[in-house]
Amino acid sequence: MSADLPSIRVLAIAGSLRKGSLNKALVRVAIQVAPPGVIVEEFMELGAIPLFNEDIEKQPPEAVRALKARVAAADALLIATPEYNNSIPGVLKNAIDWASRPYGDNSFEDKPVAIMGAGASLGGVRAQLSLRQVFVYLDMHALNKPQVLVANAKTRVDASGEFSDPAIRDSVRQLLVALDVWTRRLKNR
Amino acid sequence: MSADLPSIRVLAIAGSLRKGSLNKALVRVAIQVAPPGVIVEEFMELGAIPLFNEDIEKQPPEAVRALKARVAAADALLIATPEYNNSIPGVLKNAIDWASRPYGDNSFEDKPVAIMGAGASLGGVRAQLSLRQVFVYLDMHALNKPQVLVANAKTRVDASGEFSDPAIRDSVRQLLVALDVWTRRLKNR
Amino acid sequence: MSADLPSIRVLAIAGSLRKGSLNKALVRVAIQVAPPGVIVEEFMELGAIPLFNEDIEKQPPEAVRALKARVAAADALLIATPEYNNSIPGVLKNAIDWASRPYGDNSFEDKPVAIMGAGASLGGVRAQLSLRQVFVYLDMHALNKPQVLVANAKTRVDASGEFSDPAIRDSVRQLLVALDVWTRRLKNR
Amino acid sequence: MSADLPSIRVLAIAGSLRKGSLNKALVRVAIQVAPPGVIVEEFMELGAIPLFNEDIEKQPPEAVRALKARVAAADALLIATPEYNNSIPGVLKNAIDWASRPYGDNSFEDKPVAIMGAGASLGGVRAQLSLRQVFVYLDMHALNKPQVLVANAKTRVDASGEFSDPAIRDSVRQLLVALDVWTRRLKNR
Repeated sequence: MSADLPSIRVLAIAGSLRKGSLNKALVRVAIQVAPPGVIVEEFMELGAIPLFNEDIEKQPPEAVRALKARVAAADALLIATPEYNNSIPGVLKNAIDWASRPYGDNSFEDKPVAIMGAGASLGGVRAQLSLRQVFVYLDMHALNKPQVLVANAKTRVDASGEFSDPAIRDSVRQLLVALDVWTRRLKNR
Repeated sequence: MSADLPSIRVLAIAGSLRKGSLNKALVRVAIQVAPPGVIVEEFMELGAIPLFNEDIEKQPPEAVRALKARVAAADALLIATPEYNNSIPGVLKNAIDWASRPYGDNSFEDKPVAIMGAGASLGGVRAQLSLRQVFVYLDMHALNKPQVLVANAKTRVDASGEFSDPAIRDSVRQLLVALDVWTRRLKNR
Repeated sequence: MSADLPSIRVLAIAGSLRKGSLNKALVRVAIQVAPPGVIVEEFMELGAIPLFNEDIEKQPPEAVRALKARVAAADALLIATPEYNNSIPGVLKNAIDWASRPYGDNSFEDKPVAIMGAGASLGGVRAQLSLRQVFVYLDMHALNKPQVLVANAKTRVDASGEFSDPAIRDSVRQLLVALDVWTRRLKNR
Repeated sequence: MSADLPSIRVLAIAGSLRKGSLNKALVRVAIQVAPPGVIVEEFMELGAIPLFNEDIEKQPPEAVRALKARVAAADALLIATPEYNNSIPGVLKNAIDWASRPYGDNSFEDKPVAIMGAGASLGGVRAQLSLRQVFVYLDMHALNKPQVLVANAKTRVDASGEFSDPAIRDSVRQLLVALDVWTRRLKNR
């Protein structure tokens, strides 16, 4: 990408509320390894989003309004998803349900998005497939590759709970490089 | 099924918090049309289940304990799922995530389950597929058919918000008949 | 799209071998209603593609070479898929398997693609979801919407087996308009 | 299972035509490690099944008739599936399409089935999910676990192309033990 283009802003969301979440650690890696021209910021208030209820979707609580505003302001999204029961966490889906509503005010519309995940033996690949199915309805444009699946993730963080492994960090960096290219390509309308 | 067999207890869950939820209406139909030998009871406290957080999964809040106890006591489950963004609502998935945990205490294990849904033009078929993928991990035994998909559901309730259409009521009854057979078949171990 | 841009060439494939295939009829509609700047051509030799066998993938039969060449020459793909057993026909998947191989010579790479389908009561929506999962691996860029699902398709063709219904024809035209925009947007690299 | 019960017959199908297929090797393991009371037989003529065409489904070719007869005679199925392009091979799906037809003569109906697979880094988990979606329509009863996914399979066969690794062989044996229990449980109607 040419140096004089403005940076793209990527909003990252980790789909877990756990304090020591491996997917939050993966988002921290993304913030640290982002290539020039890519700014990764994290949405950290997933735990403040209440359960979605269509009856109140037109008067969303403050945390939802904040999420919608940040999604709308981003050039692209980056979702770090754990896998719960072969799919994405309810907590993550609930936030997506809120930010896609009300009808006609889907904050995700036409946004490029990349997926990554840290999980057990298969790294959360089934959650990633589930998420892709959601993106179709949201009319998001999901990056196809590279695939970032950190398998056996619990054994791969260091004593402070961070992914310091250069191979993992580089795979996240490559994902961001590809997301940068994809986002700029889609901007040229 | 032979008349002297004890009744089976089916726990029904509608995956929406909306007061006038069409899927709650579908659960009411199930309660009303259940064949002899099948007792359908509803779990109505989905809105009291907080966001799942693995950090506290071993000290679940009261509403989660109640859900887990009711799932464990049921012979079979019946899920009425709306479709949000091509998948199941986060609210429903969140409750499932709670009741499947902590590791080794999955309340759903080995339970027979049937799915139904009321939705827009396709009746929520994509949500049903997503739910089936979740059931595999939960080790539930999902009924394959009949398929109960109430399409264009908003136009099919009467003035009081109930499904009085005999065709819809009969399709729910047939689902329960099949769930009864399936549940008894799986009990014979 | 500006009038002086060259036309885009869309290769259409109907995933059925049946002579009176409803999905072949849908492809004929696409050819007829294509907007200015979009040329739709059909690959009609699906029945000549033998069963895929990795042992001979580097010496593909003539029909496979023809398919690969036509895919490679197209600016975008248009797949009309029936639904067999909740998924895409084996016949269609087999052709895709061939044209994606051998490793390093995936003809579909980076191609925009649109899906449509004629089927029974749900119009083949599950086949379309299955196909989208395949497109991720192929690194194709699937159009998210509009959704073209001709439900109860058998009852909607005229006596000569054609879709003359203006609503169906217009939905196919709109799909091609959107594919045109999507293809041109992705070309601007 | 009580010793005086008759053995169950399991029909195994490997979804690849390649001579040195890793999934064929996995089926050979199943034949060798089957527990007492379980007889595993292989359907080896997948390559003789022509492309499915609904126009001739009522006059199926000889290889299809043989497949249908063997499926019908089996107490349970065992599918060993590679993963091609995020899904099951077209070759396998094509054989399933044939044996499920014509309407009213679905050979797979009500059969218990287990899945296993040998593949690349994720062992073919996405193909297994795709196959489960097909089983729902076929009204088959798929075993939920154990999951047999032989990852990086190419590196795990011995010089003669066989899986001699005791861990792999034992996982296949455990799958058959579970399929045996599942099949007998479903027989007790």
